[in-house]
Amino acid sequence: MVNKVFFLILLVGLPLSIIGNILHWPTVLMFVVYCITIVALAGYMGRATESLAIVSGPQIGGLLNATFGNAVELIISIFALKAGLIGVVLASLTGSVLGNLLLVAGLSFFIGGLKFKRQNFNVYDARHNSGLLMFAVIVAFVIPEVFSMTMSPAKTLSLSIGISIILIMLYLAALMFRLVTHRGVYQPKESGNIEHEEPEWKKWKAIIVLAFATAAVAYVSEALVHTFEEVAETFGWTELFIGVIIVAIVGNAAEHASAIIFAFKNKMDIAVEIAIGSTLQIAMFVAPVLVLISLFLPEKMPLVFTLPELIAMTSSVLLMTVISNDGETNWFEGATLLAAYVIMGIGFYLL
Amino acid sequence: MVNKVFFLILLVGLPLSIIGNILHWPTVLMFVVYCITIVALAGYMGRATESLAIVSGPQIGGLLNATFGNAVELIISIFALKAGLIGVVLASLTGSVLGNLLLVAGLSFFIGGLKFKRQNFNVYDARHNSGLLMFAVIVAFVIPEVFSMTMSPAKTLSLSIGISIILIMLYLAALMFRLVTHRGVYQPKESGNIEHEEPEWKKWKAIIVLAFATAAVAYVSEALVHTFEEVAETFGWTELFIGVIIVAIVGNAAEHASAIIFAFKNKMDIAVEIAIGSTLQIAMFVAPVLVLISLFLPEKMPLVFTLPELIAMTSSVLLMTVISNDGETNWFEGATLLAAYVIMGIGFYLL
Amino acid sequence: MVNKVFFLILLVGLPLSIIGNILHWPTVLMFVVYCITIVALAGYMGRATESLAIVSGPQIGGLLNATFGNAVELIISIFALKAGLIGVVLASLTGSVLGNLLLVAGLSFFIGGLKFKRQNFNVYDARHNSGLLMFAVIVAFVIPEVFSMTMSPAKTLSLSIGISIILIMLYLAALMFRLVTHRGVYQPKESGNIEHEEPEWKKWKAIIVLAFATAAVAYVSEALVHTFEEVAETFGWTELFIGVIIVAIVGNAAEHASAIIFAFKNKMDIAVEIAIGSTLQIAMFVAPVLVLISLFLPEKMPLVFTLPELIAMTSSVLLMTVISNDGETNWFEGATLLAAYVIMGIGFYLL
Repeated sequence: MVNKVFFLILLVGLPLSIIGNILHWPTVLMFVVYCITIVALAGYMGRATESLAIVSGPQIGGLLNATFGNAVELIISIFALKAGLIGVVLASLTGSVLGNLLLVAGLSFFIGGLKFKRQNFNVYDARHNSGLLMFAVIVAFVIPEVFSMTMSPAKTLSLSIGISIILIMLYLAALMFRLVTHRGVYQPKESGNIEHEEPEWKKWKAIIVLAFATAAVAYVSEALVHTFEEVAETFGWTELFIGVIIVAIVGNAAEHASAIIFAFKNKMDIAVEIAIGSTLQIAMFVAPVLVLISLFLPEKMPLVFTLPELIAMTSSVLLMTVISNDGETNWFEGATLLAAYVIMGIGFYLL
Repeated sequence: MVNKVFFLILLVGLPLSIIGNILHWPTVLMFVVYCITIVALAGYMGRATESLAIVSGPQIGGLLNATFGNAVELIISIFALKAGLIGVVLASLTGSVLGNLLLVAGLSFFIGGLKFKRQNFNVYDARHNSGLLMFAVIVAFVIPEVFSMTMSPAKTLSLSIGISIILIMLYLAALMFRLVTHRGVYQPKESGNIEHEEPEWKKWKAIIVLAFATAAVAYVSEALVHTFEEVAETFGWTELFIGVIIVAIVGNAAEHASAIIFAFKNKMDIAVEIAIGSTLQIAMFVAPVLVLISLFLPEKMPLVFTLPELIAMTSSVLLMTVISNDGETNWFEGATLLAAYVIMGIGFYLL
Repeated sequence: MVNKVFFLILLVGLPLSIIGNILHWPTVLMFVVYCITIVALAGYMGRATESLAIVSGPQIGGLLNATFGNAVELIISIFALKAGLIGVVLASLTGSVLGNLLLVAGLSFFIGGLKFKRQNFNVYDARHNSGLLMFAVIVAFVIPEVFSMTMSPAKTLSLSIGISIILIMLYLAALMFRLVTHRGVYQPKESGNIEHEEPEWKKWKAIIVLAFATAAVAYVSEALVHTFEEVAETFGWTELFIGVIIVAIVGNAAEHASAIIFAFKNKMDIAVEIAIGSTLQIAMFVAPVLVLISLFLPEKMPLVFTLPELIAMTSSVLLMTVISNDGETNWFEGATLLAAYVIMGIGFYLL
């Protein structure tokens, strides 16, 4: 049923997006068309990713989800960086962190928890992820914020570059740890009796759908970015609010779709991997890569968020660390994360 | 023995409080009379609550304790709000959070730990509570503090109202979670062989004592509030110190009494429920209700604490989260919490 | 092999240090000589301490390690305090905290993890230590920082004295807890089948070597301090960087040496006890003792760090708390701590 709706939306939305973009139809109308089209495309990405995840196991599957969910953010951000919109890029990075950590995980825990009383995920992965969240957000994002207060802009940029390189190196080390040196070391023993599900699509069909959907999302996303200024004016939103909330919701629709589907199927390992893994990829890979890319552009981007952005991220990480620490979820933990997201949403709306 | 002392204090203290209040006896004398009377009344409240707790089980019992411990704070605060003393209200909310989290829990752990080498409480409840403490203090109190720095007072108030509504909704959701959807889900299995203790008072006698004591505490508390200004002047205390330390100690005497009694009886589940449950009720119910009540009064109260208040609360929550994380206590963990309380007491005294 | 190298270094380095110090050889040359000599002496201290640790069991052994590792810092700091260099003392305290928590523990976890896939340590000790780290750094260091913002210097000093006394009292209480009231209570049960290792040196030989090496380290350290100003000028380093990074690395060489040796022998209990126990001794004993000693000197030292120092310490404590929470280590957790150390090193270098 849902799949048919998504197919119809796509059949109408994608041509409309392309034609409307070329013919310069009214901006607010196109904003809505773009958003809906991306959500439908995200549905396809989710199904393709799920098929691939079944083929390749939970770790690689989660990694695939995170990668194809964040490709959109990376592409949008590079365009925004080229346009010198550093504030919007930092806001959308913040929004992706908050969106994944509070909204995606919150919805997964909540909706999964409505069906199942208690859901479990691998507690070793949860602790591994908590350590990295602490490192990336509480250390690597907080230090430049505080140290740069009395630094010259040149030194702030040097510090940002140094931290970016270390973040990327540790991100690669984490991949090596999970996929090479400690592969399967922290897996629960009863994973032998896994029910071998059939993927919806075969490997190559899934890859082709994924590639096409990613390209289409990229095209529509770029068009979407150019509607922001006028939409912000029309609705009285700040660019910060659009970056933190709107970009995050639409840009992470893929993660939303697939994480919630997995949670509803009681596969919390993958749902958590999508939500937190995606946060870590934003913080430890997308953000530092953007800092390094900006060095080749007219305007350099230091890794210095605004204070509200930083506080929102650090308090989210502390909340998630405490909630995910026991490897169990229920609807109320989801509700807590969602409540935190709403509070931050109100805050950024009013700012 | 203790009960007889409390009975004698009450027999003398309550009439003295009423007569002294009407005849305007010297303020500092009356301040002492009021404080002692409240502590004696709190003893009765503790015994009545314990009786009811035995009748109604640990959860509802803990809830009863928290409710009747915080009725005092709520009443004092409404009077102070009517008098426009917003700073005192926020200070006494801070003091209640610190008092419950550090002083009540600290004394319970310490005194219980002098008798028992290791004491246990339900680790699921501890984690549930830690998540809510993080949410209420680290998210819901920190966000308006930081976001309001660059906001107009009107927007700060809007943000405060939004956060207050969310806090109350999540508090109600937490009650539903514990009492309806997940009742007994996180209980240890060996709870079958509970020794069925006899309550000191029958259900209706306990309710009547509780009602009378609550009313008397409210009457004496109101009189107490009006002595603060002169007492502060006489002893060279700031109103902040009175709000944070004196109000909290006297106002939470009920929790002190009953939590320590439960700890001494090795019923740490209830002792922890009183201390942390009471903190949560202050932060997630009393504080937001006061924000909403203030909308109908001449002076509106935003949910913005002073920086020392906020830092004292956030560091207490982090300390408690780490200490309560393992579901075990001993005298040294109690001593650590008490040491933190003394440090903050010195800080607020000197401020 | 290593032992022979250390013996040769000592045979050359110690006389050179003494002669060069008396004859005022070039400062930068002497800086290098002093550093290498201290590292070699630290090797001897490590071996002597290990011998004593085998004789006296892990707790006392860890305590000995921490004590003789921090004697150097205490002596350096008293000299610096006498010279009125309060900023350098606070920086070197910060550096010791960061050095032990991130560098010593990080190297232990990393190098131990290269040999062993998963290493375990006593999770009860880890939680006990986490609680104290939270107390010392997040409560006792943060409170004076924030409260002193609006305080007079006299009140800030009063607050510092009060907090220092409480820190020392709780430190002594912690010793009593671990060595008297709860000795062996939290030990794993399988500790019965410990292999009784032979110490390298007998008890008295170890004590004599330890005493001699400590005295020699103290002599060389004092000489080292007087090279800092010129070295800073020559290499373009700030005094802050020297205090935080150089003093910490050289001053903690003893802990480095012995912690890594223990980690490599899969004795993580002792390695962790050295790293975190040493941090706690710095924060809860050395720092407050220095505050109290400064009262008898012309310049009083309040317990108020700079904001970058405080943020570096608090984020390190949060990171370590999350990483050590499960009582398990691996190379990647070590790499994470080391990455955090490098980030802070870059930050202090650029500051």
